[in-house]
Amino acid sequence: MIKQISSTQNKEVKHLLQLQEKSRLRRKEGVFLVEGQREIALAIKGNLALKAIYFCPGLIELKEVEKLNSPQVPITEISAEVYEKIAYRGSTEGILAIFKTKENRLQDITFKTKNPLILIAEAPEKPGNIGAILRTADAAKVDAVFIANPKTDLYNPNIIRSSVGCVFTNKIATGSTSEIIAFLKQHNISIYAAALQVSKPYHTIDFTRASAIVVGTEATGLSEEWRENSTQNIIIPMSGEIDSMNVSVAAGILIFEAKRQRGF
Amino acid sequence: MIKQISSTQNKEVKHLLQLQEKSRLRRKEGVFLVEGQREIALAIKGNLALKAIYFCPGLIELKEVEKLNSPQVPITEISAEVYEKIAYRGSTEGILAIFKTKENRLQDITFKTKNPLILIAEAPEKPGNIGAILRTADAAKVDAVFIANPKTDLYNPNIIRSSVGCVFTNKIATGSTSEIIAFLKQHNISIYAAALQVSKPYHTIDFTRASAIVVGTEATGLSEEWRENSTQNIIIPMSGEIDSMNVSVAAGILIFEAKRQRGF
Repeated sequence: MIKQISSTQNKEVKHLLQLQEKSRLRRKEGVFLVEGQREIALAIKGNLALKAIYFCPGLIELKEVEKLNSPQVPITEISAEVYEKIAYRGSTEGILAIFKTKENRLQDITFKTKNPLILIAEAPEKPGNIGAILRTADAAKVDAVFIANPKTDLYNPNIIRSSVGCVFTNKIATGSTSEIIAFLKQHNISIYAAALQVSKPYHTIDFTRASAIVVGTEATGLSEEWRENSTQNIIIPMSGEIDSMNVSVAAGILIFEAKRQRGF
Repeated sequence: MIKQISSTQNKEVKHLLQLQEKSRLRRKEGVFLVEGQREIALAIKGNLALKAIYFCPGLIELKEVEKLNSPQVPITEISAEVYEKIAYRGSTEGILAIFKTKENRLQDITFKTKNPLILIAEAPEKPGNIGAILRTADAAKVDAVFIANPKTDLYNPNIIRSSVGCVFTNKIATGSTSEIIAFLKQHNISIYAAALQVSKPYHTIDFTRASAIVVGTEATGLSEEWRENSTQNIIIPMSGEIDSMNVSVAAGILIFEAKRQRGF
């Protein structure tokens, strides 16, 4: 017998809604929501722990839901009205799930290669940019993505959505800039910081060695700590009127130059 | 004596608000709004015709406004309340202006070089992506940007904002895909269409010749017409789990590979 919820005034519904909206609650409870069949499957594949599934029978069949699920996890049937209230992206997929958040600790990161390629973003803010960076990182199959001094929790629904699930497919760690720099030095990974000062054009760098490419925010760039601890500051030569590039575009150009040098 | 408006119920204020919100009205009247000192200066530099200026004296000084203005254009002083109502991006710059829209016709495009580099986006939809593409185009100083089968008018406030004014610094033309293909063929410009079918890795292409790099939408890619009329379909090799790249990131990678080959 599957549990059913049809009222939007239900306490559980209100709780789900708060999980979508409040990063503090996500952190406190250590759980977050994922919408959509594909995204849920990716989160499971990414070894996130599934806690509960909610589905709307008008939009998705129970057997599709059961395909995703392991037997221990409770499934709840929700009305179309309830689904519409909780579903963040106005999708018609009819399924959402609660997962346990992952800690994304630096010390859990290991590499399969001697010459890893790492993408690092310091204090990125816009979920759309973070999502685009994670998509690039997945497409390039970088060995890890580090978020230094994070401003947003990774399980923000906007990041999950804009990353099209790449928040689950990448090896991600978060930490302070100091912690990440220490980690990179300890692993003998060259640090290439995208900066304007004392920089070499990116395409003159040998990225075939163990390399971390670091990008800062659009507003303030990288912190001094990165610039001072970099093996080499790098720059994308620009020749326009305004010369301001979207941070996820800049990261894509740098990472794919490294991929090109590495023969893809 | 400078005209003053202090009521948000004023007819002119309502009209300005509608210009921000309704692309149909912008098209009908052939005018649009630009906010911010820097953006207004860029629009003037980009040869757009200034029609009127509105400023909020608490936020910007009249002499700053007059620096931008030519004597024929009327200046209106607006109250903080009126400014807040009209200002789209909640900025505190205190200035906005009406400009005449530009036609961006293909036949007005001329090249200073024999080997132009052109960036083309077919039917881009999200203002954020269009803005990022225009920023990349400016930074790369491409010879022109073409928008094929446009879905959004370029003078949408979200595009102006997300392009940080690059909508005024680039040479832009819009047209149907057929018109643009005819233009490229007539000018002997090679067409490199980003596609999945029968494609060569982008870095194996010689982009030093007259080249147009064409990207499609994230949802449906490029239309058959582009793929069939391309000199060569090109692909960015991807090796991840999801392999879905943001369209402005893909455009950036392709354009900067061309720039790299051309020695910046």
